[in-house]
Parts: sequence; C-alpha cells; structure tokens
Amino acid sequence: MAQFTHLDDQNQPGMVDISTKSATQRTATAQAIVRVNESVAAAFQDGEIQSKKGPVFHTAVLGGTMAAKKTPDLIPLCHGLHLEDCDFEIQLDGQEIVITCTTVTTGKTGVEMEAMVGASQAALTIYDMCKSMDKGIVIQEVKLLKKTGGKSDFIAS
Amino acid sequence: MAQFTHLDDQNQPGMVDISTKSATQRTATAQAIVRVNESVAAAFQDGEIQSKKGPVFHTAVLGGTMAAKKTPDLIPLCHGLHLEDCDFEIQLDGQEIVITCTTVTTGKTGVEMEAMVGASQAALTIYDMCKSMDKGIVIQEVKLLKKTGGKSDFIAS
Amino acid sequence: MAQFTHLDDQNQPGMVDISTKSATQRTATAQAIVRVNESVAAAFQDGEIQSKKGPVFHTAVLGGTMAAKKTPDLIPLCHGLHLEDCDFEIQLDGQEIVITCTTVTTGKTGVEMEAMVGASQAALTIYDMCKSMDKGIVIQEVKLLKKTGGKSDFIAS
Amino acid sequence: MAQFTHLDDQNQPGMVDISTKSATQRTATAQAIVRVNESVAAAFQDGEIQSKKGPVFHTAVLGGTMAAKKTPDLIPLCHGLHLEDCDFEIQLDGQEIVITCTTVTTGKTGVEMEAMVGASQAALTIYDMCKSMDKGIVIQEVKLLKKTGGKSDFIAS
Amino acid sequence: MAQFTHLDDQNQPGMVDISTKSATQRTATAQAIVRVNESVAAAFQDGEIQSKKGPVFHTAVLGGTMAAKKTPDLIPLCHGLHLEDCDFEIQLDGQEIVITCTTVTTGKTGVEMEAMVGASQAALTIYDMCKSMDKGIVIQEVKLLKKTGGKSDFIAS
Amino acid sequence: MAQFTHLDDQNQPGMVDISTKSATQRTATAQAIVRVNESVAAAFQDGEIQSKKGPVFHTAVLGGTMAAKKTPDLIPLCHGLHLEDCDFEIQLDGQEIVITCTTVTTGKTGVEMEAMVGASQAALTIYDMCKSMDKGIVIQEVKLLKKTGGKSDFIAS
Repeated sequence: MAQFTHLDDQNQPGMVDISTKSATQRTATAQAIVRVNESVAAAFQDGEIQSKKGPVFHTAVLGGTMAAKKTPDLIPLCHGLHLEDCDFEIQLDGQEIVITCTTVTTGKTGVEMEAMVGASQAALTIYDMCKSMDKGIVIQEVKLLKKTGGKSDFIAS
Repeated sequence: MAQFTHLDDQNQPGMVDISTKSATQRTATAQAIVRVNESVAAAFQDGEIQSKKGPVFHTAVLGGTMAAKKTPDLIPLCHGLHLEDCDFEIQLDGQEIVITCTTVTTGKTGVEMEAMVGASQAALTIYDMCKSMDKGIVIQEVKLLKKTGGKSDFIAS
Repeated sequence: MAQFTHLDDQNQPGMVDISTKSATQRTATAQAIVRVNESVAAAFQDGEIQSKKGPVFHTAVLGGTMAAKKTPDLIPLCHGLHLEDCDFEIQLDGQEIVITCTTVTTGKTGVEMEAMVGASQAALTIYDMCKSMDKGIVIQEVKLLKKTGGKSDFIAS
Repeated sequence: MAQFTHLDDQNQPGMVDISTKSATQRTATAQAIVRVNESVAAAFQDGEIQSKKGPVFHTAVLGGTMAAKKTPDLIPLCHGLHLEDCDFEIQLDGQEIVITCTTVTTGKTGVEMEAMVGASQAALTIYDMCKSMDKGIVIQEVKLLKKTGGKSDFIAS
Repeated sequence: MAQFTHLDDQNQPGMVDISTKSATQRTATAQAIVRVNESVAAAFQDGEIQSKKGPVFHTAVLGGTMAAKKTPDLIPLCHGLHLEDCDFEIQLDGQEIVITCTTVTTGKTGVEMEAMVGASQAALTIYDMCKSMDKGIVIQEVKLLKKTGGKSDFIAS
Repeated sequence: MAQFTHLDDQNQPGMVDISTKSATQRTATAQAIVRVNESVAAAFQDGEIQSKKGPVFHTAVLGGTMAAKKTPDLIPLCHGLHLEDCDFEIQLDGQEIVITCTTVTTGKTGVEMEAMVGASQAALTIYDMCKSMDKGIVIQEVKLLKKTGGKSDFIAS
C-alpha cells in the first residue's frame, strides 16, 4: 500500500533518514518543454549567424544550473548534495523548446530533484526572456526521463 | 517585429532598466498541474479525517512561498521586489492536483515570474513527496492565468 | 477569540496580505541571553587590553546582522523588507551575555521577526565560538522588548 | 586553561581547520521551549480533529529543517556539511511548546550547530505565527541535549 | 578627521542607520580589468563567427548580475536594496578584458557596493572559465569610476 | 591549442563533469591588495591599543569566509564543495592592505575559486567600511599565489 516517505506515523512532514545508506553514483535526466507562439519561435531562427538562440539559451542553461545547485534550498525536505555534473541540452523543435537536464552525484541519495529543478528553472528563464512577446507561453511535460543508481533504475515509458 | 527585452543590440543578455517606471500595484496568478497515478491520488483520499493531503499540501504551499520570495535569486535577469501577498490554492481533481499561486506587489515591475516560480516549486515539492510511489508523475500546464498592473492587463484565453 | 493570522479558513498556512496597508516607520527591539559557565566568562575578562570579547562579540554582531537581513529566507511566511538599521548591544553581566538587537524599516509590515532572528543568531554565534569550552551553554529569554509603528506599540512588561 | 578555538594567537577570528580529521557519523539533539499565553495554548487545543496544531507545527518543522540546512550560511565560522537526517518532535505541554531537533551527518565535524539552529528557527517560526495573539511569548532553554561522534560524546545533565 | 562610519564609539562594527535619509535615485559605475595571457586572448578572437567571447562574456554578465543582486548577503554591513538596472559592458583590449558595471536604484542608500561586487564577480567568472588555460590571470584595478545621487557625486580622477 | 573547459563543441556553457575524478586533498592560496589613501591608512594606525584595524579586519575576515563558503552560488559553473579550512592573513603595509586567503578541501575539484572569492570579498568588505573616507580606493592584484592537489600544483612566478 502506498506510503509517503516524508510523513511520519502522525502525518508530520520530515526529512528521510539516509544515514545508513551507502554512497554510490547516481544520475538523473529530466525534461521540460516550453511551448511558444510563432513570433517567438521565429525570433529564435532569425537568420543571423550569431543567433538570438545563443544568449537566451545560454541564460537558460546558467539559470538552470545555478537553480539545480540550490535544490536543497528550494525543496523543503530535500537532502543537500554536491552535483558532479549538470548537463543541459536545449533544442528548438517548431514551436517547442525541448530542455533536458542530466545531473550526477556520488552519494547516499538520488539527484532526481536536482534534474527536475534544473529543467524547470531553465524553462522559467526562457519564459522570463520571452514573456514580453508572448504571455501565453506554456511550460508542459516537466518529467523524469531516467534515473540510475540507488535502489532501482527508472526509464520513463 | 518581436524583440527580446533582455538582449541589447549586440545580443548580450542584461537586466531591463525599470528606473524610470512608476510604482503601481501589480498582481499575477499562475497555475501548475501535477498529474499523479491512481495510487497517489488514493493516498490523498485516505478516509482519515486528518488527511495526508494536509501535510503534503502544506509543505507545497511553504515550498512554493519560500521559492517565490527567492525569485530574483533564481531567474537570472529578474528584478528584486517585495511580495505583499503570495496566496496558494491547491485542489485535487481526480488524478490532477491543480495549484494556483497569486502574487501581489507595489513596485516598478510585475510579479509574473514570482507567481510562475511559486506554482512550479509547489508542484516540484509535491513531486518530491510522491516520487517514491510514482516516478511517472508529470507537471503539466505551468502557465500565467492573469496579470494586472503595469502597461497592460492579461487574462489567459 | 484568538485567531492565527497565517491560517486560512481551511487551516492552510499562508502569507498575510499586506498590500493595502500603508508604509510607515517601524522599529523593534529583541533580546537574547546566553548563559555560560565560569570558565567561559573568565575567558572574556582575560586582562589583556585587546580582550577576547572583541572578536567574539564582533563575530556575533556580524552573524546576527547578516541573519537579520535573511529573515524572509528563514521564517517561511515572513514578508521581505529592507532593514534601514540593525543595531546590537552585547554586555557581559557575570555569567550572562545579554544581547539586544534593534531593527528599523519603513514599510507595510513590522520588523519584530528581524530583531528576534538577529538576537537569536548572535546568541547562536557566541554559542558556536564557546561550545568547545562549555557544552552546557543555554540560550534563555529570547523575547521582544519593544516595538513601535503599525497598528499598536508594545513594551514588554 | 580555556581557549577559543575560533581565535588565532592574535585574536583574529577564523574557521577551525578540520582537514586532518577523519569522517565519522555524528549526531546531535537540541531543544527549544516556546512559552505562550493561555489564549494561544487554547488555540492549539481547539477540539477540531484537524487541529490548528497541524499547520502551525508543520510550518515550524519545515522552517526549522530549511534553516538547519542553511547553518553554514548563518553561523559565520561554521563548516558546510550535508545533513543525512533532521528530525523534529514538537509537543504541547500546558503553555510550553517543547521542540527537539536531532541532526545526523557523516563527516569531519559535528552537527551541534545544525540542531541548535533547527530548534531555534522552529521556535521562531511558531513565534511568528502566534505573535498577533501574544507579543509576550518567550523562547527559553535553547540548549544541546546530546551529541555523539567526534572526540567525545555529551549528554546534558 | 577620518572616521569609520561602520564602527561605534567602542569600535564595535554595525550597520549605518539610514532611516532618516530620503529616497532618491542613485547610480554607480565600477570597473574591473582581467589580464590574461596571449593564449587566452587569442581564444577570444578565434575567427569563428559565433565567437568564444559570446558564451564566456554572457556567463560573466549573468554571474556579475546575480552577484550584484546578492550584495547585502555578501558585504556584512551593507543595506538591502532593489536594483532597478544593472548594466555590463565587457571589451577585449589586447590582453585586457575591461568590465564596467553600472547599477541604479531609488532609495536611501547608494549602489556603489553593488557595482563593485558586480564587476568583481564578472571578473572572477571569466577567471573561472579561463583558469585551465592560464593560472597566472590577474584581476587588477577594481575601482569605482563614478557615482551620482546621495550626499555628493563622484568621478574617478 | 587553448580550449575552454566550460564550453561544449557548440560553444554552449556548462559545468565540467568531475564524476570520474578521485577525491584528494586540495589547497589554494589567493591574494588581493587594497590600496587606500593616507588618511585611511592613518586611521588603521591610530595609536589606541584596541586599534580600528581590529573590527575592520575582523569584518573582512568574516565577510571573506562567508563568501568563500557561498562560491558555488556566485560562480555560475563552479561545483559545490565543503571547505575544511579557510584561513586569512591581513597585513597593513604602508597604504596597501595585503589579504591572503588559503582554502582546503578533500574532494574531486580544486578550491582556487573559493580562495579567489574569499580574498576578493574580504577586500570589498574593507572597501565598504572605508569608502566614506576615500572613494578612490583601488583593489589590485587579485590573483592565485599557489595551489596543490589535483592534476598539477602551481606557484605564481
């Protein structure tokens, strides 16, 4: 039967005790999709060789990376850990900007939340930079694609 | 023609100058939807009077509120501001947890990003607390529902 | 009948809406007392002209000041504000180190929490610097001495 | 003779060098007591099954947990470390709210300050949520109850 | 006779009281120069149209902007304020990368420290990205070029 | 040929993958020099036994230490790590205040940036405390003096 790992038997929220777990390498990949209007999509494909995509996507990577490092400050019951890698891919596919964020650590707990926060905040950074052109932007499909290490691996179906 | 307000004429990213704007009251409402599996949805409707929904949704509200206050630390080119209100509603609708976050300030710039960050991070907090039961959770439809104040109002169609 | 201002009618926690309040000058003074053993008290009165009190109390003032500035990051439902002053007095009285912290702002909400956090964190900083000599140190009597501005003034009886 | 570990021979404050210590498991338990008036105590015992205690104490646990994670940002000369557990118990005993916070890490330095900061900030969070009903609330008896690991164990007498 | 505004008459450090000052517009411009070896300088002029300068200088602008916003968290006795603009110019001049950062606020205190922190941290960000190629990089001439607003204006001679 | 370790083959900035490196002890020493006018230099040599140097240099050490701990929040692509030591020396030499900061960790990545940030922020803290007496203060010669551990050692020529 389903149980909330962050609630004790009196339903009080709390951190999960990981002190007896062993430190192993763990990775996670998460995705976020930013759906923009035609005007914004066109602005990213403006024919200039130094494309607009450059600085906007760079800002998103940096916003996402810095937020991923801050995950334990953002998710109340998340453990602290040191990211050993935080890698972003951002592709423009028609009106969809597809962001993936892969995180790696060696430790007693997984890096799913770091990947999820990284992808979400990269998406929100793009939202911020495009919102004056399109207030109808939607961030959709923020989800975990894959994790390895820890009790079991996972690949999104 | 569409233009990026955060890029200068050499495509270098930077903050928008708001020093000559006037301070007015501004509000924004954003939404995020967390789609969970049947098992998690059932765990929120467990028949006990002190429902599991309580501590999980409380944690989400607090995670969202604290993240909304940190928006300028998270969105690289966002201005700092003081939130005068940050209000959450979280409803369980079948397998969808619908979060709305409304933010208010009096200042020279809008609070859309604060509402978007608040809703997203509340959603990610719920994700964190349910992920041991369902790694396939998807956060979908993070978007601005409404804004007032500043140059123009906006209501999502 | 007593009511929690941070709970809505469904007992969900949330920020208090201050958007319609007017900005006025507000001050608060809080106190914390650190009770140390004789050995630590003696170490602060070491007869050298450049007393040990100097660097320890300086560190406490700085730890307290920096924490007071971070109050909205620490108290989940606290509003952000800008401190216009944050003044500490620290006196050694026998085995009691008496800390007072006075905070000032001009804004829509009070600075009691900033003064309470400032005094507490200055006390904890002293604890940290003395704990190798005395693990039995107690921080006692953290309380508000006075506030002015807002709906009503307060002086501790 | 008593010596300040954070002062060098010229009385300049500084971090303690732990680079040659070995990493072991360390725990600490700290306590804070919040003394409230009868009206506030009654508000926590309001006869409703979904008690006011729920959201207020949940907020305190989350405020305390998030502050404990930030300890190296708050205590100027404290080392960074990763908490492997941070567990709270909060009991209402007449007009006293008794908070204990237990922290665990595996590392080169102890977690006393994390437990002390966690307990203090949980107490301050309760103060914040009750202060409109009782400005005379006092936080008393913030102290270390126990530590294990490192050079020597400690139990408060 | 010269006096330290952050020391009281007992030489205790503390924040300056600005509560009685009036809020006016204030600006500041600071500079930092990063001196790199020929190899690094050449890497910035690599003939590709999408130059290496792009992402490195973008990262520096973002690192500098985000640090400037955090100034009160970094400079112990600095007041909090909201930046209304934070503008960077970065020019490569032979082996010197010349960074200027201009900050603007409307408030009771100046923005010199924000400009100084912004320029310094942009310089350190470039250092970080080039240090594998040249460990002998020197950051030189971090200084205030200009300030306006407040008691008096200043232009560096 | 020179290569930017933080840029991928499409010139997108990103964190360096350190997951396959081994954890070893690493140290770094950086320097910053603050050049002040005669009036400020005299204020540090005021003949009183409890010199002004005390609280100003203490504040600089604490500002530098706390900033060094925050390095991964400040340098966008820097990895997180735990400082095991962070040691400052500050000497007044005529009109030059010479700051050195030595950092130590055991981990997969070096501590050069922590030492550079520590020295820079200590220098900026002194700047902040002296700027009312001398707006022409210049921070010069921020550079790495030495590093040990990792692929190769380095000593500044």
